[in-house]
Amino acid sequence: MSKGFLLVISGPSGCGKGTLCKKILERNEKLIFSVSATTRMPRRGETNGINYFFINKERFSNMIEEKEFLEYANVHGNLYGTPKQFVLEQVEKGEIVILEIDVQGALQVKEAYPEAVFVFLLPPSMSELKNRIKKRGTESEKDIDIRLKNAFEELKFIDEYDYIVINDELIEAVEKTEAIIIAEKLKVRRLKNILEKIID
Amino acid sequence: MSKGFLLVISGPSGCGKGTLCKKILERNEKLIFSVSATTRMPRRGETNGINYFFINKERFSNMIEEKEFLEYANVHGNLYGTPKQFVLEQVEKGEIVILEIDVQGALQVKEAYPEAVFVFLLPPSMSELKNRIKKRGTESEKDIDIRLKNAFEELKFIDEYDYIVINDELIEAVEKTEAIIIAEKLKVRRLKNILEKIID
Repeated sequence: MSKGFLLVISGPSGCGKGTLCKKILERNEKLIFSVSATTRMPRRGETNGINYFFINKERFSNMIEEKEFLEYANVHGNLYGTPKQFVLEQVEKGEIVILEIDVQGALQVKEAYPEAVFVFLLPPSMSELKNRIKKRGTESEKDIDIRLKNAFEELKFIDEYDYIVINDELIEAVEKTEAIIIAEKLKVRRLKNILEKIID
Repeated sequence: MSKGFLLVISGPSGCGKGTLCKKILERNEKLIFSVSATTRMPRRGETNGINYFFINKERFSNMIEEKEFLEYANVHGNLYGTPKQFVLEQVEKGEIVILEIDVQGALQVKEAYPEAVFVFLLPPSMSELKNRIKKRGTESEKDIDIRLKNAFEELKFIDEYDYIVINDELIEAVEKTEAIIIAEKLKVRRLKNILEKIID
């Protein structure tokens, strides 16, 4: 049995990483979505261990100290993090784990776990990115400008990634990401014990 | 425009690399097959520059001295080699060049041009490999044994390769190789100038 891997899908706000990941998980039942830990309270319909691992602040702080997160961040006063153990266990079992995360988070993951596979999802153009953020209709003009400025900043870190996928047509971006998954599964370093099977 | 790459398809005698490459080239018109140089005489129907570059021994020796081959070998007294210039020119133009070659040749290419992408094509099992060599019907029992022994030796070099593709069902092996091609085209290091297009 071969080792799995962590596939980090990341990119600027508005690049469509949420939609892409949702589609990929729909089409590939065997993929596993990384479940975050959070200190915020569960919302109606959210289940512990499925939507999030709901833990208290003390436990979260301990986990930070013990370096049990691949990354974590404070969002509006609540802590969110990716527990390392869950990911490593799945990878060891041969599973492919998908982590959807912003660029800051991906860079933390790269630091803690460089063996992961990093995909930078890009909009077809920065003006298209602006259109997409606008279309959400939830941001003020000022917020849109901040998001765009951040996106430009984040492009500087593209060399930390392995692959670039342009999210122009969703289905094409999904198929490209699926090709990356197929190819990464065929990497020699993940298939070491395949020789034992061949030499029968 | 992005850089292309050289895809080296290699593996033991009988693994089916010829059939695989033929199928991939049929299905992907834009791929370019690397044309070898040889000192042997053209056979009926062979065209210079398409089947081979037909050159004389003196020219071949000069090219060896000038390190103009990615690899070369002496086969039954005739010299065969992969001219470096042709491959590098195509790669620079953004093309993907396919080179079908035995393991010894692939290791030479790895030495001369480590940027290439190396695929090791494996039979589903060594007993299946034996069956396939037998089915050709062209080899004596002794020759079959030599080929099998060589195949086992060649497996030791698998770590020099990037990907392993098992050639059980041809069409699956072709699709996996195509996924490798798609993924390799998305590698960040080949797409550097994509940012200029995004930042419009």
